[in-house]
Amino acid sequence: MDRAKKTIAQVGEFGFIRSVMMNCVHAPEKVIQGIGDDCAVIGPYEDRVLLITTDLLVEDVHFLRGKISFRELGAKAVAVNLSDIAAMGGIPRHLFVSLAIPRRMPVEDLSELDAGMKDMCRTYGVNLLGGDTSASQGGLFINVTVIGEADAKAVLYRKGASSGDRVYVTGTVGNAGAGLRLLQEELIAHDDLREALIAAHNRPRPRLEQGRLIAGSMLASSMIDISDGLLSDLGHICEESGVGARIFEERLPLSDELKALCRVNSLDPSEMALSGGEDYELLFTVPVKNAESLEALLQRHGHLFFEIGRITEGKSIRVVLAGGTEKEVTPSGFDHFAPAKRSPCPPSPCIRFSPDD
Amino acid sequence: MDRAKKTIAQVGEFGFIRSVMMNCVHAPEKVIQGIGDDCAVIGPYEDRVLLITTDLLVEDVHFLRGKISFRELGAKAVAVNLSDIAAMGGIPRHLFVSLAIPRRMPVEDLSELDAGMKDMCRTYGVNLLGGDTSASQGGLFINVTVIGEADAKAVLYRKGASSGDRVYVTGTVGNAGAGLRLLQEELIAHDDLREALIAAHNRPRPRLEQGRLIAGSMLASSMIDISDGLLSDLGHICEESGVGARIFEERLPLSDELKALCRVNSLDPSEMALSGGEDYELLFTVPVKNAESLEALLQRHGHLFFEIGRITEGKSIRVVLAGGTEKEVTPSGFDHFAPAKRSPCPPSPCIRFSPDD
Repeated sequence: MDRAKKTIAQVGEFGFIRSVMMNCVHAPEKVIQGIGDDCAVIGPYEDRVLLITTDLLVEDVHFLRGKISFRELGAKAVAVNLSDIAAMGGIPRHLFVSLAIPRRMPVEDLSELDAGMKDMCRTYGVNLLGGDTSASQGGLFINVTVIGEADAKAVLYRKGASSGDRVYVTGTVGNAGAGLRLLQEELIAHDDLREALIAAHNRPRPRLEQGRLIAGSMLASSMIDISDGLLSDLGHICEESGVGARIFEERLPLSDELKALCRVNSLDPSEMALSGGEDYELLFTVPVKNAESLEALLQRHGHLFFEIGRITEGKSIRVVLAGGTEKEVTPSGFDHFAPAKRSPCPPSPCIRFSPDD
Repeated sequence: MDRAKKTIAQVGEFGFIRSVMMNCVHAPEKVIQGIGDDCAVIGPYEDRVLLITTDLLVEDVHFLRGKISFRELGAKAVAVNLSDIAAMGGIPRHLFVSLAIPRRMPVEDLSELDAGMKDMCRTYGVNLLGGDTSASQGGLFINVTVIGEADAKAVLYRKGASSGDRVYVTGTVGNAGAGLRLLQEELIAHDDLREALIAAHNRPRPRLEQGRLIAGSMLASSMIDISDGLLSDLGHICEESGVGARIFEERLPLSDELKALCRVNSLDPSEMALSGGEDYELLFTVPVKNAESLEALLQRHGHLFFEIGRITEGKSIRVVLAGGTEKEVTPSGFDHFAPAKRSPCPPSPCIRFSPDD
């Protein structure tokens, strides 16, 4: 096939990003981290660095009108960016938002969107300092950029994990993915269950306090937020660190709600936990010698944490199933441009076990 | 009419922006300038400040496929942001880009877009440090955020103009607006003329060197880039500074190409110069006592400048016509959501003389 005729859907998002990633830095002074982590890091300015992250939410790709309120959508557009700041151990400071708005959109909906963004900004002391607006001939587009800051010595990257490190998450996983399934499919669920799981999807909270504590302790070796899915995001840590990982299915922290939903509907809660995206918990690794101290620190501050696996040599990611057998998995990540049969669960990012291994 | 039923098209972009602008700053420390200038300004960090700006380009609103090459489009998406950095007197440093891409878009076109962005980044030493990509169910959306820096003492805002100050522009005005007309209408023009004017619209250059020189001299009182149109952007300076202005039609710097096009097609070159947007020249004001020194400085560095008017007391903006009569004008700015009859020249921002005064 003629290269000139290939579409983005055929080459895929990750292929395009790889080509964009080349020849990006012309003036390396003050660039500590470019493309390839949760945030870019620039500085230092005195003893601080700045963290910058940007996330785009597109109607009918990332969200469906009617499945999330505009207030929730505004808050979520901010929260997913704050989560990236949390994943580096930073404090979010300033926010910029660009909106492309369908001409027929009611002002009341826009006001709710604005209120949702402001709720989240107020909660975390983030300033809205600029942006841009435009009409949209298609749906609603929301692009948020957040600038945060951190102690220059205490920023935590994806790239620091070593073989032997313990793998932790800051909370239960799979709820947001289950919430998305409830929005997309006819599943059996009591109202309370439905509400709790859909709220996990529509109202994520950034783990800012945990992120600062973990990074600030200088005891962890790497960190990322779970946006694409546990395995996919663990895959990013492994790729950047040049390591593999082994995750124990039995240790996955599953909520009672997730377990109840899966039981009634004959779904696999582990698969939801491993592959469902948008939990926005933090995934972090800790050298064994530091594990006890960091666990004590998190406990002292009343934060949840769950040890779910180990970093290994090699590059494969394996899941040790409840029965003891091991399964190699492919953390391929959700590709927005993949043909529909390969991505059964948009609008959320998701990844799945590879078919047969 | 029920408020709940009002659409963004009825309330307008500026009405919505006004409501968004409220309750934005929760942690004023390090916020020097929020919404309301070409860039946000944060800091200081040692003796420097950071400038942040973001601009959204939307297909069929800001650009039409086939009327601009993807390479030009990529470069322009960067250039319009660099122009905002120039307007504060800064140096652009880091860039973040979010793309929402139609699934059927050929990869070759995306590569050209990427190359155009990289051309502009390389020319001005700007690092591409992050971004986001998504599928789009509509057209192509490009959001660019640029972080620049400047000497904390030498940043130039919109708000410093005083009655009596001279008003200058850094180059000819109206070419980009004329180029847009050529892309939209059947006008008579030789190929050379057509190419030159369309290039002014499709390939803007940010006036970074001039911006740094003007701001760094500490001799000017305010500055803005001409993106919406000369009168509209002068209006922003007047509004922020609490002043008015008088512009002399005879002093407007018009290119030979613009004059030739207007002559043959019976168009008014002054109106194009005053209301056509996207020239990306700098508009700045200078107290009379500093004018000679700043003119000498610009001359010494080989930069063009044109004195076109004066800042006045009051809040009106008046144009002194060639015949000597004065006309008050309304720098209303182009509203993306205005009904079509009020905005005859999208996709570019534009403003017009008010109907009868």
